Amino acid sequence: MNAPVVYAHHESRSFNAAMKDVAVRALEAAGWTVRVSDLYAEGFKANAGPEDYTRRSGSERFGYLHEMKHAAATRAYVPDILREQDRVAAADLLLFQFPLWWYAAPAIVKGWADRVLTDGFAYTDERLFANGLLKGKRGMLCVTTGATPEELAADSDVTGTMDEILRPFSGGVLQYVGMTVEPPFIAYAPGSASPAARSDMLKAFARHVEAAATRAR
Amino acid sequence: MNAPVVYAHHESRSFNAAMKDVAVRALEAAGWTVRVSDLYAEGFKANAGPEDYTRRSGSERFGYLHEMKHAAATRAYVPDILREQDRVAAADLLLFQFPLWWYAAPAIVKGWADRVLTDGFAYTDERLFANGLLKGKRGMLCVTTGATPEELAADSDVTGTMDEILRPFSGGVLQYVGMTVEPPFIAYAPGSASPAARSDMLKAFARHVEAAATRAR
Repeated sequence: MNAPVVYAHHESRSFNAAMKDVAVRALEAAGWTVRVSDLYAEGFKANAGPEDYTRRSGSERFGYLHEMKHAAATRAYVPDILREQDRVAAADLLLFQFPLWWYAAPAIVKGWADRVLTDGFAYTDERLFANGLLKGKRGMLCVTTGATPEELAADSDVTGTMDEILRPFSGGVLQYVGMTVEPPFIAYAPGSASPAARSDMLKAFARHVEAAATRAR
Repeated sequence: MNAPVVYAHHESRSFNAAMKDVAVRALEAAGWTVRVSDLYAEGFKANAGPEDYTRRSGSERFGYLHEMKHAAATRAYVPDILREQDRVAAADLLLFQFPLWWYAAPAIVKGWADRVLTDGFAYTDERLFANGLLKGKRGMLCVTTGATPEELAADSDVTGTMDEILRPFSGGVLQYVGMTVEPPFIAYAPGSASPAARSDMLKAFARHVEAAATRAR
């Protein structure tokens, strides 16, 4: 069983890094093969562009969707896209580990979705949502927040609830390509939590990942 | 009156480019000063990182929020952030022109928010939402979709309604920093529309921008 981890934090001593390490240990202990895509360390390019394709359609007018469709038949993608697609193709469970910035994934994670989940690989015009090309795989969002649950609830009339905040990614990305969405794990405000509370969150996260690994077998 | 336009499309012959041109003409005709930040043409960096600060806090452990707070007092930001902040600071109305990808802004626009709207410039712990540092300014989302309204409605139980799709940006970014959110303009599926329908959308968009320019006076 394969579990790639799409991981986005600069700092190896961060709480996001600790969560990533907890997930890797929990999955490996359960016999899974884990590969971490450490986006910042690898300098992952966030911005989609013409340079993502090694063979262009010849259209004078650059349209990203058009080029994606053209590249699909021959997988004419640059190496970082190919590598990520190979990991996704082999995945049984795909984890995303990132801090919520502006009530959404950081640009580097959004860019991963923009560039890696191409038309013809993850979906087609006919194969999306329940019938998406990545059907049968599971996806899990593992996120940290700056705000406490109380602060988030107080602002939810403007920003939406946590379910609504995650929906563009969980529904609009993971479900769009056919994945089954595992319950997310949200570590609330670890930056202002006590060491004991941080340790408890990591233990709860380990159990959360173990349960998902069991369900995905 | 100043209206910066944060513009994100590769192709000068795209519908997004046509919308951007329509907005510029409508605003200039109304006597406004317009500056377009053409993110792709300028190679705008989407990924936030330690290199965004010209003077670091000295903390061994890199935390983006921590560095933002530290840099605020001396504006120790790299030139592209400074330039965008200067444009935002001078703005009466701020337009964002982009195609919706994965029910959200493309990575390059998300990266603009991640990097430009720094703690101490756009908000502080005490000054956010109704009291945000950019209070008094107006923001407008101008977006294109790949899907038709009917297709979007059919999938809205999974992806959310258009209001909900835009909320992380309109509520979680623009309102967070204190801006008044203008009604968005959504051009549905221009890529599959007839030339006449595209032309009608552009005319409706011109009227939409003119109305916002009048309100913002």
